[in-house]
Amino acid sequence: MAINVTIWNEYRHEKLKQDVHELYPDGIHAFIKSFIESDDVKVTLAALDDPDNGLPDDVLNNTDVLIWWGHMAHAEVPDDLVERIRQRVYAGMGFMPIHSGHHSKPFKAILGTTGNLMWGRNQKAVLWNVAPSHPITEGIPSHFELVEEMYGEPFYIPKPDDLLFTTWYEDGNVFRGGCTFTRGLGKIFYFHPGHETCKSFYNEYVQRIINNGIRWCAPAKLDSSFNGECIHQTSPVVG
Amino acid sequence: MAINVTIWNEYRHEKLKQDVHELYPDGIHAFIKSFIESDDVKVTLAALDDPDNGLPDDVLNNTDVLIWWGHMAHAEVPDDLVERIRQRVYAGMGFMPIHSGHHSKPFKAILGTTGNLMWGRNQKAVLWNVAPSHPITEGIPSHFELVEEMYGEPFYIPKPDDLLFTTWYEDGNVFRGGCTFTRGLGKIFYFHPGHETCKSFYNEYVQRIINNGIRWCAPAKLDSSFNGECIHQTSPVVG
Amino acid sequence: MAINVTIWNEYRHEKLKQDVHELYPDGIHAFIKSFIESDDVKVTLAALDDPDNGLPDDVLNNTDVLIWWGHMAHAEVPDDLVERIRQRVYAGMGFMPIHSGHHSKPFKAILGTTGNLMWGRNQKAVLWNVAPSHPITEGIPSHFELVEEMYGEPFYIPKPDDLLFTTWYEDGNVFRGGCTFTRGLGKIFYFHPGHETCKSFYNEYVQRIINNGIRWCAPAKLDSSFNGECIHQTSPVVG
Amino acid sequence: MAINVTIWNEYRHEKLKQDVHELYPDGIHAFIKSFIESDDVKVTLAALDDPDNGLPDDVLNNTDVLIWWGHMAHAEVPDDLVERIRQRVYAGMGFMPIHSGHHSKPFKAILGTTGNLMWGRNQKAVLWNVAPSHPITEGIPSHFELVEEMYGEPFYIPKPDDLLFTTWYEDGNVFRGGCTFTRGLGKIFYFHPGHETCKSFYNEYVQRIINNGIRWCAPAKLDSSFNGECIHQTSPVVG
Repeated sequence: MAINVTIWNEYRHEKLKQDVHELYPDGIHAFIKSFIESDDVKVTLAALDDPDNGLPDDVLNNTDVLIWWGHMAHAEVPDDLVERIRQRVYAGMGFMPIHSGHHSKPFKAILGTTGNLMWGRNQKAVLWNVAPSHPITEGIPSHFELVEEMYGEPFYIPKPDDLLFTTWYEDGNVFRGGCTFTRGLGKIFYFHPGHETCKSFYNEYVQRIINNGIRWCAPAKLDSSFNGECIHQTSPVVG
Repeated sequence: MAINVTIWNEYRHEKLKQDVHELYPDGIHAFIKSFIESDDVKVTLAALDDPDNGLPDDVLNNTDVLIWWGHMAHAEVPDDLVERIRQRVYAGMGFMPIHSGHHSKPFKAILGTTGNLMWGRNQKAVLWNVAPSHPITEGIPSHFELVEEMYGEPFYIPKPDDLLFTTWYEDGNVFRGGCTFTRGLGKIFYFHPGHETCKSFYNEYVQRIINNGIRWCAPAKLDSSFNGECIHQTSPVVG
Repeated sequence: MAINVTIWNEYRHEKLKQDVHELYPDGIHAFIKSFIESDDVKVTLAALDDPDNGLPDDVLNNTDVLIWWGHMAHAEVPDDLVERIRQRVYAGMGFMPIHSGHHSKPFKAILGTTGNLMWGRNQKAVLWNVAPSHPITEGIPSHFELVEEMYGEPFYIPKPDDLLFTTWYEDGNVFRGGCTFTRGLGKIFYFHPGHETCKSFYNEYVQRIINNGIRWCAPAKLDSSFNGECIHQTSPVVG
Repeated sequence: MAINVTIWNEYRHEKLKQDVHELYPDGIHAFIKSFIESDDVKVTLAALDDPDNGLPDDVLNNTDVLIWWGHMAHAEVPDDLVERIRQRVYAGMGFMPIHSGHHSKPFKAILGTTGNLMWGRNQKAVLWNVAPSHPITEGIPSHFELVEEMYGEPFYIPKPDDLLFTTWYEDGNVFRGGCTFTRGLGKIFYFHPGHETCKSFYNEYVQRIINNGIRWCAPAKLDSSFNGECIHQTSPVVG
């Protein structure tokens, strides 16, 4: 059965800056769609300035994996939308915040973190695959290069379930740049490449990692005994 | 140097129910104080119905470790207080939610969780120490018994940094009843005993665990290079 | 492509004890084969008393996932076979020690542990699924019952990557009875049911869990840059 | 009560190479002793060419924390000594392998790993403190520089309990260079600086980290109920 992926994009930089527009003329979300859409991945596009910020109930509640790209307008995402996303993740929806999504309201609320980190200029970066057996790193070599905005330690995140990538930067920094988490029944994969003025989304390994991530984040098939409730008193399990 | 512990208690059950009043005549917070106060632990008491809910800035900002007991009035804790506590924890304050604190607003916001679980009647419980080398379990035997309200799996918490106790219940349930977490610079220890109609706080091992927990949760001595900021662009580290 | 599973069984109890023989007339390994063999799982049977203890190089080196059942004859497994298994796991082979495999030489050598635990009589056991989103627990309810030999805490294992099942026992014990680990490139899943005088392998959930485990433990598809070597000096990655 | 630390050193490079001899004229072990000995740390020196390889039972069995430096003569460490060390760690002794200790027999046997990694020339290294709240990083800034032999990913270690330091190298590599593990009742801290031709042991932060590590690795005070045995059948815990 196909995975329903919704790609949410702030979609502002692409309209405001010529260099970004040239890289991603239809928006970063449309570009991501171009390399993930397939027989088993159905894609919906959503943007901040769409009605209901692109995520009315009928879209959000039918999303298996939500990819999130935001940067300059984090503050404009309404709190009640954040809460609806949070509850969806805890109920099993996958969540993939990309790049500056580390500072988005959903990331901070879902994980329990400030998302703070160090940052610097665009520069040469080497991504090291430190979990070669993980499904998300399948087919990825021990390391590969990008030119990316520097995101560096200290990165104030909860300890990841799995650390997949550690990134090296020319300026002397390192970054836990690919991390998985579980919250409630939902799986979360944070991946740092994707600055609006960089070409990382054109990189074959970045594309492969995002595709692997979608499959890993897809909701588990749960037995009905997992209902997430905390309201009824339980009867004895054994007589 | 002494650790400043603030014990926050909802302090309602003790006033409303005769059996609770008899167990904890001056409140659960006052009873906890009686077994933690010492030369190196200074205690402040705080209650929901105190001015500023017991946690004005001058108290909260001078707290090293915040112990939290709440149950019937979770909803009355103001959201801005929750946010102030959250920021304090991320900046290094220790946090020890006890018993039904799993469903308190601060627990859910700080960790990123619904805190949902299964629950049942008061009954025989056996707490198994599954991390005997951890500082919080120092001096605690492999197992000990309590009579406690049943809290059981599934418990929808993020994967703990360390699982310290797993509790067995007469009715057939188990519970990850003692867990540590790190969020930002702050350390968190959740411990499940302490129902208002049970005598767990009188138990010597519960007392020892809470005392060990306070020392483990106390803020680390941090170098000034950890400022938690994410607002300035960083200069290159290497030339 | 099919997964090559080798089921290694000590295969002694079944020949020595009438009650075990009746439960598993062709051996525990043959019984496991009956519920895992399928279009995508090819099975080889191996036993301690076979030539080369059932695991000559041409079998071991073509095994994707090794299931291990041993109990009374741990000491008869030759050390050089243990070392060959260890190297295969570190190079990516999956390993599934079942029940008393916690005390087998391969388990202890591969993980780095004594494998010690508490044990007791056969009794009612409730297995709680504490990681409902994990691929190995797919389709498994929040809990189910078995009659099993008691294996209890303290269980002296390294902290698991993921704790999947916690088992409750009638006699007051608990056990981290389903755990995953990674060693080198290999994935390991330990699962406690399967005593020779119990009928756990007939249970539909036990069968499902073992089938899920095989798929989870199967070797990752690795890029050739992961060669596991430590002998050549590396050239600079960046110019 | 004082912590008994034994510093085991291969003690060969210092005798064979003039440049190493000049840096560490009495051996690396004697140099480490000079910055850790104190009122609460008692030090014993041990070397490969000492009788019983420096670790007869009366020394090993009275050691609280064993620091290990070995490189060119790993193969000369007898297997029965490795097994004695392994059992001591599982019974609670702390273990601190330094630098090329990642490839020592005790490291590989205790943890369950090949210890393999990438390595390269001595060069500029920046150590990033990624766990600022951990007792071992107390007083350590967000980052500091060394000149060190390059040790890089992929590093084939089990997932650490805590990742404390990630190291950046001039040549484009990164390394999980400070890691903690628990095995049985023993705590293990691996730390990568300390090549024989580098001056890392003269660095104030390296000295502080080793001193913090000793205190963190010191054996826990255990209740007698933790005896590590697996030989007696257990009586029911509850009636």
